[in-house]
Amino acid sequence: MDPDRLRDLLESVAARRIPVDEAMRELRDLPFRALGFANADTHRHLRTGFPEVVLGEGKTPEQIAAILVELARGGSTVMATRVSPDAAAFVCAAVPTARHLPVPRAIVVGPVPPPDRGRGVIVVVSAGTADVPVAEEAALTAELAGNHVERIFDVGVAGLHRLVAHRAVIERAEIAIVVAGMEGALPSVVAGLFARPVIAVPTSVGYGASLGGIAALLAMLTSCAAGVSVVNIDNGFGAGQLAAMLNRKRET
Amino acid sequence: MDPDRLRDLLESVAARRIPVDEAMRELRDLPFRALGFANADTHRHLRTGFPEVVLGEGKTPEQIAAILVELARGGSTVMATRVSPDAAAFVCAAVPTARHLPVPRAIVVGPVPPPDRGRGVIVVVSAGTADVPVAEEAALTAELAGNHVERIFDVGVAGLHRLVAHRAVIERAEIAIVVAGMEGALPSVVAGLFARPVIAVPTSVGYGASLGGIAALLAMLTSCAAGVSVVNIDNGFGAGQLAAMLNRKRET
Amino acid sequence: MDPDRLRDLLESVAARRIPVDEAMRELRDLPFRALGFANADTHRHLRTGFPEVVLGEGKTPEQIAAILVELARGGSTVMATRVSPDAAAFVCAAVPTARHLPVPRAIVVGPVPPPDRGRGVIVVVSAGTADVPVAEEAALTAELAGNHVERIFDVGVAGLHRLVAHRAVIERAEIAIVVAGMEGALPSVVAGLFARPVIAVPTSVGYGASLGGIAALLAMLTSCAAGVSVVNIDNGFGAGQLAAMLNRKRET
Amino acid sequence: MDPDRLRDLLESVAARRIPVDEAMRELRDLPFRALGFANADTHRHLRTGFPEVVLGEGKTPEQIAAILVELARGGSTVMATRVSPDAAAFVCAAVPTARHLPVPRAIVVGPVPPPDRGRGVIVVVSAGTADVPVAEEAALTAELAGNHVERIFDVGVAGLHRLVAHRAVIERAEIAIVVAGMEGALPSVVAGLFARPVIAVPTSVGYGASLGGIAALLAMLTSCAAGVSVVNIDNGFGAGQLAAMLNRKRET
Amino acid sequence: MDPDRLRDLLESVAARRIPVDEAMRELRDLPFRALGFANADTHRHLRTGFPEVVLGEGKTPEQIAAILVELARGGSTVMATRVSPDAAAFVCAAVPTARHLPVPRAIVVGPVPPPDRGRGVIVVVSAGTADVPVAEEAALTAELAGNHVERIFDVGVAGLHRLVAHRAVIERAEIAIVVAGMEGALPSVVAGLFARPVIAVPTSVGYGASLGGIAALLAMLTSCAAGVSVVNIDNGFGAGQLAAMLNRKRET
Amino acid sequence: MDPDRLRDLLESVAARRIPVDEAMRELRDLPFRALGFANADTHRHLRTGFPEVVLGEGKTPEQIAAILVELARGGSTVMATRVSPDAAAFVCAAVPTARHLPVPRAIVVGPVPPPDRGRGVIVVVSAGTADVPVAEEAALTAELAGNHVERIFDVGVAGLHRLVAHRAVIERAEIAIVVAGMEGALPSVVAGLFARPVIAVPTSVGYGASLGGIAALLAMLTSCAAGVSVVNIDNGFGAGQLAAMLNRKRET
Amino acid sequence: MDPDRLRDLLESVAARRIPVDEAMRELRDLPFRALGFANADTHRHLRTGFPEVVLGEGKTPEQIAAILVELARGGSTVMATRVSPDAAAFVCAAVPTARHLPVPRAIVVGPVPPPDRGRGVIVVVSAGTADVPVAEEAALTAELAGNHVERIFDVGVAGLHRLVAHRAVIERAEIAIVVAGMEGALPSVVAGLFARPVIAVPTSVGYGASLGGIAALLAMLTSCAAGVSVVNIDNGFGAGQLAAMLNRKRET
Amino acid sequence: MDPDRLRDLLESVAARRIPVDEAMRELRDLPFRALGFANADTHRHLRTGFPEVVLGEGKTPEQIAAILVELARGGSTVMATRVSPDAAAFVCAAVPTARHLPVPRAIVVGPVPPPDRGRGVIVVVSAGTADVPVAEEAALTAELAGNHVERIFDVGVAGLHRLVAHRAVIERAEIAIVVAGMEGALPSVVAGLFARPVIAVPTSVGYGASLGGIAALLAMLTSCAAGVSVVNIDNGFGAGQLAAMLNRKRET
Repeated sequence: MDPDRLRDLLESVAARRIPVDEAMRELRDLPFRALGFANADTHRHLRTGFPEVVLGEGKTPEQIAAILVELARGGSTVMATRVSPDAAAFVCAAVPTARHLPVPRAIVVGPVPPPDRGRGVIVVVSAGTADVPVAEEAALTAELAGNHVERIFDVGVAGLHRLVAHRAVIERAEIAIVVAGMEGALPSVVAGLFARPVIAVPTSVGYGASLGGIAALLAMLTSCAAGVSVVNIDNGFGAGQLAAMLNRKRET
Repeated sequence: MDPDRLRDLLESVAARRIPVDEAMRELRDLPFRALGFANADTHRHLRTGFPEVVLGEGKTPEQIAAILVELARGGSTVMATRVSPDAAAFVCAAVPTARHLPVPRAIVVGPVPPPDRGRGVIVVVSAGTADVPVAEEAALTAELAGNHVERIFDVGVAGLHRLVAHRAVIERAEIAIVVAGMEGALPSVVAGLFARPVIAVPTSVGYGASLGGIAALLAMLTSCAAGVSVVNIDNGFGAGQLAAMLNRKRET
Repeated sequence: MDPDRLRDLLESVAARRIPVDEAMRELRDLPFRALGFANADTHRHLRTGFPEVVLGEGKTPEQIAAILVELARGGSTVMATRVSPDAAAFVCAAVPTARHLPVPRAIVVGPVPPPDRGRGVIVVVSAGTADVPVAEEAALTAELAGNHVERIFDVGVAGLHRLVAHRAVIERAEIAIVVAGMEGALPSVVAGLFARPVIAVPTSVGYGASLGGIAALLAMLTSCAAGVSVVNIDNGFGAGQLAAMLNRKRET
Repeated sequence: MDPDRLRDLLESVAARRIPVDEAMRELRDLPFRALGFANADTHRHLRTGFPEVVLGEGKTPEQIAAILVELARGGSTVMATRVSPDAAAFVCAAVPTARHLPVPRAIVVGPVPPPDRGRGVIVVVSAGTADVPVAEEAALTAELAGNHVERIFDVGVAGLHRLVAHRAVIERAEIAIVVAGMEGALPSVVAGLFARPVIAVPTSVGYGASLGGIAALLAMLTSCAAGVSVVNIDNGFGAGQLAAMLNRKRET
Repeated sequence: MDPDRLRDLLESVAARRIPVDEAMRELRDLPFRALGFANADTHRHLRTGFPEVVLGEGKTPEQIAAILVELARGGSTVMATRVSPDAAAFVCAAVPTARHLPVPRAIVVGPVPPPDRGRGVIVVVSAGTADVPVAEEAALTAELAGNHVERIFDVGVAGLHRLVAHRAVIERAEIAIVVAGMEGALPSVVAGLFARPVIAVPTSVGYGASLGGIAALLAMLTSCAAGVSVVNIDNGFGAGQLAAMLNRKRET
Repeated sequence: MDPDRLRDLLESVAARRIPVDEAMRELRDLPFRALGFANADTHRHLRTGFPEVVLGEGKTPEQIAAILVELARGGSTVMATRVSPDAAAFVCAAVPTARHLPVPRAIVVGPVPPPDRGRGVIVVVSAGTADVPVAEEAALTAELAGNHVERIFDVGVAGLHRLVAHRAVIERAEIAIVVAGMEGALPSVVAGLFARPVIAVPTSVGYGASLGGIAALLAMLTSCAAGVSVVNIDNGFGAGQLAAMLNRKRET
Repeated sequence: MDPDRLRDLLESVAARRIPVDEAMRELRDLPFRALGFANADTHRHLRTGFPEVVLGEGKTPEQIAAILVELARGGSTVMATRVSPDAAAFVCAAVPTARHLPVPRAIVVGPVPPPDRGRGVIVVVSAGTADVPVAEEAALTAELAGNHVERIFDVGVAGLHRLVAHRAVIERAEIAIVVAGMEGALPSVVAGLFARPVIAVPTSVGYGASLGGIAALLAMLTSCAAGVSVVNIDNGFGAGQLAAMLNRKRET
Repeated sequence: MDPDRLRDLLESVAARRIPVDEAMRELRDLPFRALGFANADTHRHLRTGFPEVVLGEGKTPEQIAAILVELARGGSTVMATRVSPDAAAFVCAAVPTARHLPVPRAIVVGPVPPPDRGRGVIVVVSAGTADVPVAEEAALTAELAGNHVERIFDVGVAGLHRLVAHRAVIERAEIAIVVAGMEGALPSVVAGLFARPVIAVPTSVGYGASLGGIAALLAMLTSCAAGVSVVNIDNGFGAGQLAAMLNRKRET
């Protein structure tokens, strides 16, 4: 409940414009709506810098389309992640304003905001070609939250010179998202070479002992380099969202 | 915030006995005290039927003794679980009213309440001798919460006749806590033979493929018998506490 | 063997109406029919409060239809779980009295009994949209066993205010079934806020480190809140069945 | 190398009918043909009591058909396991003497031998309907090796009376193969009740915490009953083959 | 209940030497003593060929000594397994007739029976020096059950010639117990070379990727050789007991 | 190699003050010193805001003392983590300027810098008493890097009101480090209630299914709340270091 | 940067043919191109003995075709691995010079080089028919790198005589690649019998406890034989590439 | 059996100096001594380049001393690995010629052979200080086999410049052994930068998600760099032995 609204109510009670019983009804549920208030703060806070998001996986195309339409009604930019090609075709036919981005497997409704909400640049680094969808999901998420994003793709541990070639971009960045499958060594190397905070994203790329991304996940968690933290396997969205939160200019 | 207190406040505002600013201050923190209220309910509810508990593991003997003294001050019965023999000796020397129960590795301060808080009997069944400490921890916990507890120990799957011999006790019980290590088959058999709800407690008894209780845990989770749910490995306390909550006469 | 029948037999022997050899034949198999007797008790006991159930998974549509017809012959309500849409279509065509409930992936033959067999309300709480099928399976199972069920869906840990809004329902409930995938934190939170006994149902919703529901399962097993026990991943049926057993009015 | 052949050779050398160089050539590879000799024993030994077997999984229908024809040429009975329905249709069309057994997913060429090679009866016990294919594979394998097999199916832990009803068959058996998925408790119970040696076969039947049969496998390995050993998940063939070897009348 | 006793009872009733009420009392508990009867059969059966056994692990020296004395009272040979050196010293001091066998970590009270209860020889094969305690536990168990046991130790996969040198012993044996840690390949090789039924015993010998015996366990379960079944890691006792059951001359 | 130095060299060559061969020698190793340069940047960068650190675990007290003395020689503040009490006593005796902090198990040499290097406050939240050492390690690390740190301890999921009571501190913080063992739900709840970026630190507190912290780790990785990333189990130091990097005022 | 090019540059500076500023530009990026230089060495080095390789898995047929055409432009032999039959058909239609090798699931463009780049023979040994695709991938890779390869297929542990029959080939080989699924014992046996260095390749062949190749992987890692190292499950390509590197004649 | 000895025997038979029966006895066991011959080759082969080795772990000091004395009797150099400090003290007291090397936890009896048996240099690279014992075990093993070994220690991924500083040594080496714990990235980086064949040795250094070395093991197995194979966790000895076999000058 926002303070102005509360003051109005109390003043109306004091002025006897509103009887006590009616004010009671209004206030009665305050304690248990409390978390809701906290949460509304959260929502408002998030809305200032963040798109609404729909996890496409596990939903029917009809459900995705309906939720996108609903969320976009308020005018904010909306994003659906992990949308299969078939679902994307259905949704784009049903929602004319929807744009399908096949590489990050996403659908976006509404404009990409100008990149003016972050303190600095977010750089997204990825190891192999097969990691690109996850890396693009991270990059898109950060861009939809109003960040300037630089992409440095295909710079695996077996070819560090390509990574070093982009040193200036990485060292200037506020935060680096580093995406890698297989042995997951790239975040350690980036953090060791450039001393930037790294959000490490393991991917399920690989086979056999990569255990669907577990090998990369464990490697990233046990990194000996400073400044590395980890999100779930293939969670490009979560990395992009966290990077946007960390890069956000603080409201004073 | 209780309704009467809220009405008083609003009426004082309406009567201009309290200025709006002061009412604002009073009400401002309501939203965030909300969960605290909910929780105070919880605590009161728990206090009516339950001993205070200290997890002894990972605490120094000095810490256990201090917390027991502190908690017992209010007059309620207090229990410390997973207390090593050395710690128990120290605590009993420091807290003269403390009683050490070596089998369930527990210390109790205060009287055992009369067994009049439950709707029925809680039966605790265990498979092997090595499972007894966990079974006794469950039984003691339920007794300290005011329940009548029956113990049927040492009735492993390899000797079902001993189990059947106690059929009357089991079938009359409100709920059965079944404790077993190794292959963890006993809860399935008890639930299959007697159709009582079973709280299954896997123990870490066993070696090799028992994986510290994981084999028993998985077996219990995949039980084909009706009415089985599972708590953590060796968690006799949790089983006893849940059984007491399920057996509690409902306040009307 | 019931005592009256045994007394009749012995008196017939004493009266020499039945020769010893015939009594021998009658009594010879008693020891090994023993467990059968126990079990018949079980069956009778279950029948009083419970629908017959067919696990649809791993059976052909023809098998499901045949078993449903067979079980429904006795007049009791019958339920098939984990039925695929294709199998459901076949079964409903073959068994005209069958009703298909697509969300809990179930087929029901026979009437839903009146909710008068339980001591109180069973509340089913679920975290995300993707957890609803498992939650609905739990709710349906409890309803078919004659319970009053309340549903509180889509109240994940990231939006606790929605949960708190339903506090009255939860606090009045006899038992809560809490269904959650991913990090599986909801049962801990429900048990901590409301002090109700919780049957926690992990779901396979999630990806990567959720390991097909293992992450949620482990989190629920290691819950620091009082009164939580756990069933198998996605086992809505088992949770509903256990809740019904726990909620059953005891025959006196 | 058989002794007579060696004596002939040496006598021919002594009689100078064979020059030393030629004997050298003959003997030179002896050491490395050694294991081959051992192995030929093995083969001969196996042929006396055992069908030839083809693992169908991972082979094309053409390959299965070709190998069956090749193996059956010598007149022995031949079996292919884990044959999909499509592959079975192809093979039966291509090999007119092939019989398809859909439940154990097997194809057999040649007659079932009379059950006269075993010392006693092999009993195959299984828990649920879904375990039957594995149980039938075990039974068929033992039958094709010339054993008398008794089947006791659908006697899960939740209905022990059905198991006890078959006590006579089990107690007379030379060896019991016990097949179960989910919590895998049946082998422990059979071994505990009847004191027969048990070959336990875990199946992949189940979901969630059954981990594709791992839960049943671990439970069987940690059985507290005497006389239980375990084969791989779903390995009905291996269990049948081992039972046949154990039941074999020893050549004297 | 044995048939003669039952006939006596019925004839006494027929002859009115025993009133019906007294017969009722006698017979009333028959159904639920049923499993006990089955189990008594088991016990009797086991006693004819088997020592009583105490699992020493997890028991105090005082408990081990007390149980050994109790069990030995009946005159049968008794064995305690997994006894630490300290516990063994205490037990041997307390029970003068106890003999400590340090390699298999066992204590035996009573004579080793003559090796006349088996159909043939049981051979125990082990891979490395560190596997010997488990192998000796298996051998001792089988000997105490009245079997002739041959030991072939230290014949790892890296030195197959030593194994082949003992071919005669292995091929004559009724059953082979094969004990190995690390990669656990020995049972496959023994079963492949000699076509004997093999009870494979994985040991916890090894480090790193041996995972406390899991590597050997998995290798043995997935053996491509015919006739291999597996017991728990380090479970020499179980292997010896099973081998004795399989080798037992059948009572006719 | 810095540009001025390179220009000097080339101009010296152009002016023939340095012969080509000498310039060759100077430049020859440039390519392979490259990474060293990058790294020197890193070191310089780190030195500006960060203490030198010694991982105490796995080192002898003598080694820890020697390294501390060596590192402290340059005047910077130095920290040793995971120091056992015995090692700490030795080190403090050997290095008079060393201070032992027993709760975070750390030794510090040199002054705590003023908290003026961060943009905002770092808040450290922990669930249970047993998580405090890890939480204190995180707090100390951040403080030694010149940050203002607020501690909110003992606010587990089972008592959310205590957490809510500290809402102002959390919402004002630049970043939150959330430390929890067992089911690891606290980071999800904090991120959900307060919309702050969360560095989640699972601890090894717990038993059984907590699997040494794996349960908490998986729960944190699969959190459904926005803005959560994870470091290794018990890695308070890594969390503190990352928080300091994220909070650092950027040099312009 | 190669020394001659550097000397030219410096001499041009000394001769004032190139101004210092231009030389600066040329040299400025040297430090960060450093790893690139190292890597160029790598590439050149690899090109002398190695085909270019494309991992087909996870790429569209169009992508595979495009990359093959691009890589083959330079005239070197190019290989694509893990190509599905459908993708292979597309690629062969699009790239007329492409040859599809269905067993190793590979596509090759360009000639197989003469086998003159290795010091000796590389022998590839495999256990079962299902392991052949992985074994052929290893053999093809080594052949495309200019090696003489001998194949010994279908020599599982259960038929060691077939292995021994090929002893001469194995003992003459420079290195052995040994491919096996299921229990993965073959590398241990080959290394034990022949004392050749062994690159062990576990395959995903098997079911149940083979855990997709984990059982074989663990067995190979814990091999008790000398000279065994291991690559990823099903990684025939990696084994062939490593064998080629180890067999390479060293440039002097 | 060596050919000369066989020719002698046959010529003696031809010359009738030895009767056929005596030759029979001599030759009779040839087939089964076959593998022994193969193995004797192995042994001889190994002896030419390799020390005898005793695995100290799991043996008593007395056993280690006795075996060392026995093995050293033949004059060859002997090595014991994984010897605890206490055992080492005992052994050195008992065997005056024994030298204890505390870092690699080894005992050596006999001289280090001159480094003249390898084709080139073996380089041992390790990541952290805690990995040194494993790295030294590898280096010592290779040196005792007559190789020239270079050590490059403490060059973790977080400080690649130190690694690059040693480029000349690594690029000249015949083979690199790379030892690393935690995230295990170093082998990938070494193989990527220098294109040398790498034997990767994961160590158990680390905590939490390093899972006793499993994280490093998986990372190494899934390395995206060419030329990496892996041995067991902490298996410095195995890596050194394999490197020596690979580096061995081939006997012509």
